[in-house]
Amino acid sequence: MEIIRALEFVDGKLKFIDQTKLPLKEEFVVTDNYERIAEAIEKLEIRGAPAIGIAAAYALTLAIRNNNTPAIFYNAYDRIFRTRPTAVNLFYALSEMKNIFELNKNSNEVYELLLVHANKIHQSDENMCNAMAKNGLEIFKKKSRVLTHCNTGALATGGNGTALNVIRYAFEKGMVDFVYADETRPLLQGSRLTAWELNKYGIPFSINTDSTAAVLMKQGKVDLVITGSDRIAVNGDAANKIGTYNLAVLCCYHKIPFYVAAPTTTIDKNSPNGDSINIELRNKKELTNFGTLQITCDDYDVYNPAFDVTPNHLIHGIITEKALHKPPYDFRNV
Amino acid sequence: MEIIRALEFVDGKLKFIDQTKLPLKEEFVVTDNYERIAEAIEKLEIRGAPAIGIAAAYALTLAIRNNNTPAIFYNAYDRIFRTRPTAVNLFYALSEMKNIFELNKNSNEVYELLLVHANKIHQSDENMCNAMAKNGLEIFKKKSRVLTHCNTGALATGGNGTALNVIRYAFEKGMVDFVYADETRPLLQGSRLTAWELNKYGIPFSINTDSTAAVLMKQGKVDLVITGSDRIAVNGDAANKIGTYNLAVLCCYHKIPFYVAAPTTTIDKNSPNGDSINIELRNKKELTNFGTLQITCDDYDVYNPAFDVTPNHLIHGIITEKALHKPPYDFRNV
Repeated sequence: MEIIRALEFVDGKLKFIDQTKLPLKEEFVVTDNYERIAEAIEKLEIRGAPAIGIAAAYALTLAIRNNNTPAIFYNAYDRIFRTRPTAVNLFYALSEMKNIFELNKNSNEVYELLLVHANKIHQSDENMCNAMAKNGLEIFKKKSRVLTHCNTGALATGGNGTALNVIRYAFEKGMVDFVYADETRPLLQGSRLTAWELNKYGIPFSINTDSTAAVLMKQGKVDLVITGSDRIAVNGDAANKIGTYNLAVLCCYHKIPFYVAAPTTTIDKNSPNGDSINIELRNKKELTNFGTLQITCDDYDVYNPAFDVTPNHLIHGIITEKALHKPPYDFRNV
Repeated sequence: MEIIRALEFVDGKLKFIDQTKLPLKEEFVVTDNYERIAEAIEKLEIRGAPAIGIAAAYALTLAIRNNNTPAIFYNAYDRIFRTRPTAVNLFYALSEMKNIFELNKNSNEVYELLLVHANKIHQSDENMCNAMAKNGLEIFKKKSRVLTHCNTGALATGGNGTALNVIRYAFEKGMVDFVYADETRPLLQGSRLTAWELNKYGIPFSINTDSTAAVLMKQGKVDLVITGSDRIAVNGDAANKIGTYNLAVLCCYHKIPFYVAAPTTTIDKNSPNGDSINIELRNKKELTNFGTLQITCDDYDVYNPAFDVTPNHLIHGIITEKALHKPPYDFRNV
């Protein structure tokens, strides 16, 4: 099965695939400019909570490559901190990198030390992806038809993905029959990115509008739903791409199990529940325009949250690299 | 309040606004060519179940204007019959026009007689819109925040609309505070057409992706939901734009009343329940492309039903020109 890598650190530069161009163009960006990486995160050229954390770690490393003063480091830190507010992996990565910098700021090897740690975050994410896939296998009770939302594959992580990797691995093991990919408005990560990955992996799939998921469930075509998460509260409430809560409600109504797959780096120990998760509101142009094409008038009001929060009682299980966690969830010590 | 007319028959020609261009361009088409009207229905330049019925009646009339042979009439009848399979108003209009033609095919005045009947269907639809608005007022128990899906306004009918006219009228009466318009994938009738109408009427509104409706409900921002219908079975099961069933399930979960507004011409006496309603599957390009812009690969599979069916038990009330019908529904004699 084809291996996809969203991010690679090669010869002192970060190489990443520009996800806004997929699937029509497979275009790579190679840069040692941290500002370019910050921009890539903001514009969703790099996206997915784990991938954002890894890219942020490499960006901070590159920021001080030629000049490792605290002023430069903290300036870059602040810049990257402000890129996207919801994915907690970003803040964990930044905070770890800051600790390394502060402990070693007088060392000549601070760049190398930061790079070692960025690589470690990356490698650790790759390992977590593999472990999640294995832990997720037991949710497939038979050869299943699975529905998923947004993109949670290799493109979203440093390895093979979270929820989509659970699906990919189960497919390899003969436990996935078909995948329904929600197109995932407004940015269409499902019809663009998940479809691109599924096609590369040779997994049978079709694309549907987000609201068609309800009909597929009513028709008995969906055995289970798996999504990723951008931030999980200590009680198991999970923030994820807008539309996830909708799916969880549909699953509840149709008695279909709803699962979340995410590494434990997605758990926010400072969020006792979903109410304390900061939800990013994104630009109205994501609804009024598509690319260069205008859909509707710019001056109409738009409500465009990037994420929603699914309450723990709608989640049948949360798959991390450590286990398949069952409710009631308590992530204080995970 | 501004008056909008989707269709007008003027000087022997049908004048209609090209809804695929709205809201960015207000472009009218004037034609006496029935084939052009059939095309307009297929391409959704003219859309909305009642408007389709009216346009079909005018198209059949125009077809035999210069040459009223049965061969020409039935050829046009078949052509228009095949435009769209779900809106029952289309088939009622065609069947009525066929009766008039068959009773009068030897008369010199068959064109005039068909035109009188097409005008009658149009006028009757306008009257039904007004009556529905009045019958719908009682669902507003307080100044309400209303969510709606697709476009069910003047653009969809021969008058002021179905569900959106209930909202418009209630707004005039001081009973509507705010409208949330689902963008309505894939063809974005909400963010384009409903937004355009609401803006013309001066009703405060915002646009959201379809799956954001769930979050708005969770946040307690939605007091009630009203949609239209393209075909209602005798038992009250209602086919409507894809995404309507999703909303009805969300309303059930969040304990929000869900209403349907449609004229009795939408009732299909031949459909005992929703299972017998023929659901149109539309072209995959509606998901893989937006206008001239390609979103994702053409060769990916797409499941793109135009409509879904909401079972009667999820519908709090069905507003027709005759009454606000409450469950259990029995439309055999309505």
